[in-house]
Amino acid sequence: MDSFFKVKTAEDIFQSLGNIKPLGTESLPLKAALGRVLARDVVSVEDLPGFQRSTVDGFSLAARDTFGASENLPTPLTVAGEVRMGEVPNFELKRGECATISTGGMLPKGANAVVMVEYSQMVDDTVLEISGPVSPLENVIQPDDDVKQGQIILQTGRRLRPQDIGVLAGLGISTVDVFLKPRAAIISTGEEVVDIDKRPKGGQVRDINSYTLGGLCMKSGVEPVYMGITRDSFQDLKQKVEQGMAQTEVVLLSGGSSVGSKDLTLDVFLSMEGVELVAHGASISPGKPTIIVRRENKTLWGLPGHPVSAMVVFDVFVRYLFERLSGVSNPLEYSEHAIEAEFDRNIESASGREDYIRVRLSQAEGRWIATPVMGKSGLISTMVEADGIVRVDMNSEGLYKGERVKVRFF
Amino acid sequence: MDSFFKVKTAEDIFQSLGNIKPLGTESLPLKAALGRVLARDVVSVEDLPGFQRSTVDGFSLAARDTFGASENLPTPLTVAGEVRMGEVPNFELKRGECATISTGGMLPKGANAVVMVEYSQMVDDTVLEISGPVSPLENVIQPDDDVKQGQIILQTGRRLRPQDIGVLAGLGISTVDVFLKPRAAIISTGEEVVDIDKRPKGGQVRDINSYTLGGLCMKSGVEPVYMGITRDSFQDLKQKVEQGMAQTEVVLLSGGSSVGSKDLTLDVFLSMEGVELVAHGASISPGKPTIIVRRENKTLWGLPGHPVSAMVVFDVFVRYLFERLSGVSNPLEYSEHAIEAEFDRNIESASGREDYIRVRLSQAEGRWIATPVMGKSGLISTMVEADGIVRVDMNSEGLYKGERVKVRFF
Repeated sequence: MDSFFKVKTAEDIFQSLGNIKPLGTESLPLKAALGRVLARDVVSVEDLPGFQRSTVDGFSLAARDTFGASENLPTPLTVAGEVRMGEVPNFELKRGECATISTGGMLPKGANAVVMVEYSQMVDDTVLEISGPVSPLENVIQPDDDVKQGQIILQTGRRLRPQDIGVLAGLGISTVDVFLKPRAAIISTGEEVVDIDKRPKGGQVRDINSYTLGGLCMKSGVEPVYMGITRDSFQDLKQKVEQGMAQTEVVLLSGGSSVGSKDLTLDVFLSMEGVELVAHGASISPGKPTIIVRRENKTLWGLPGHPVSAMVVFDVFVRYLFERLSGVSNPLEYSEHAIEAEFDRNIESASGREDYIRVRLSQAEGRWIATPVMGKSGLISTMVEADGIVRVDMNSEGLYKGERVKVRFF
Repeated sequence: MDSFFKVKTAEDIFQSLGNIKPLGTESLPLKAALGRVLARDVVSVEDLPGFQRSTVDGFSLAARDTFGASENLPTPLTVAGEVRMGEVPNFELKRGECATISTGGMLPKGANAVVMVEYSQMVDDTVLEISGPVSPLENVIQPDDDVKQGQIILQTGRRLRPQDIGVLAGLGISTVDVFLKPRAAIISTGEEVVDIDKRPKGGQVRDINSYTLGGLCMKSGVEPVYMGITRDSFQDLKQKVEQGMAQTEVVLLSGGSSVGSKDLTLDVFLSMEGVELVAHGASISPGKPTIIVRRENKTLWGLPGHPVSAMVVFDVFVRYLFERLSGVSNPLEYSEHAIEAEFDRNIESASGREDYIRVRLSQAEGRWIATPVMGKSGLISTMVEADGIVRVDMNSEGLYKGERVKVRFF
């Protein structure tokens, strides 16, 4: 078995997963596309807003008519009409004329600027006085200011946010092509693991991992396929893994904590046709006893049985894998979103591996303080207490009290 | 109308919304409860894990048997049995005995510690040598180390994360009481606004706000109820608002950008029985022309017609309201989650109002740089370009190049 032992650094593992490809695509109505990943660049077929539009309430006018206007010598303009919302003005401004306009109204012919209602004064029913010059295009959006025809407005690989949906709506794009949502099979193993509806007998524990891993999948925009608990037998395990592989792109098998069953997971994975071993052990803590096997675009994961370790391995690697499978163009950048905090203990860390420290956050004088959550790594309650995790670099020997760290929420 | 004019600071508005209450509750199966908010403290009725458990693979033993052991004088122990996973050991250790055990296994009677397999050596089939003392409880989880019986493990008002779901699973709690998901009615107004499936004629624009606001609702865990586009008529508008109020807790009406229709929104809102005006104008930019009216736990919002302004008002106020309606216990804390970046321009800001600046993020030598996205506030494309927003305090006169700012993603 030692000949298989292939402990990999986090960087090696990321590299091995780098060429994982997104799945097929589907067309969705715009309202259902939030959070999904664009499978095709979107090019605008028109200008937005498509006409000269006022950004304020006031009077549309020709800027040149106001040149030279001042407090002492205001320029009088004749109010020749009113722009109605949603309509093309059916009149044209002549020299010395203006027209009332609301925010969003279309400028009439002859106008190239708008003066705000606050900066002008009606002196009688038809005459407006302007007490300062108005620049051309002042308070005006040009027809292609927002989006230009032919412009790529959103690129393949973008996870759609509300504003992205908004610009698509503005351009009349009511269906979008997105990548299919990945699915992941979740299997728990271990002679000691029982369903959560059962009362555990001595030595037994309930199946936590199906729930934490299922939740993490959902949070990542991946559909969990729950396959239940499997006894530690080669045949049972192989059958479940085959089922999982047939239905999904990713098999997350957790547990098998006894010495024999760890080997069993590896044996079962390697018995699948056409697979190659990516990692047998990862140089991260917690999470070292991780097994990764791959067949083309599909991956099989042997995650630690400890709920905390399994969650950390998910956060570090599986989340990245899911981003790639989802077609996100910049998956690693995504994981950098973290807040800065001041670490408030000295903590040692073995060099040669990445350590992941659970922390609780608090505020002191406007600064975030990150306090490590102590407790054995097998305790799920430590994850409940924690607000996030801090990564300790492989080349670091630990963290010092007062050191600035990045905390990723989870 | 001026007598109604009630421009409020952000702080005033938060205060007015502070006593908004969460809705009723419902019971959900655990797997469906991710992201929902607990409506009741969860107290554990049992200890977790419930038995003395090994955290490593190795040999369970009595610590006192190893006192005095050293490299030069290892202590021999007789391997008297094997702990099987998921079972209560059917034997008891006598003086000088040990038993093999896997991670997660239950300690046999007579054992109070576990030595890792790496720190011991089998000298023949039945004799193990220990070359150093093992402390009592070393590599052991006590029956109540994870959760104690009677302990409040999760409190009312917590939004359930994967690990929270996990600890509930571990305790066999398969259904949970959560607060009902709030719903929000979304109405667009404006003579110029047309459905996104229509080709706008001159002066018309497609309905962006229904899509951006709907997306923001979903992101906040709130169900949007789309009520379509309404013409600027008192009767039509009143009817839609009444429908929205009957079906939901929050009415988000956007648009009505022309001078007359702004007054119309206020008139319609104030014509509803039993309402009180919370704000007519907010001292934030963009977003000043915001109207908030309240009847007990229900609120009506007149949001600016500009998609960007409407999004900012949502992010600042409506998101907070939704957190309160959802029953989250610390809604303001939540909004503090932001990354720190270096602002890379000088920007002026009027004192006496909060400014919200859209920024793009980039990295330089491991630091985040926040660059303001320039462009008129009416342009939805500026939101698409932006990664987040930076708040400029009411008492600040602007931001300086090089200043540290907090960027909230959206």
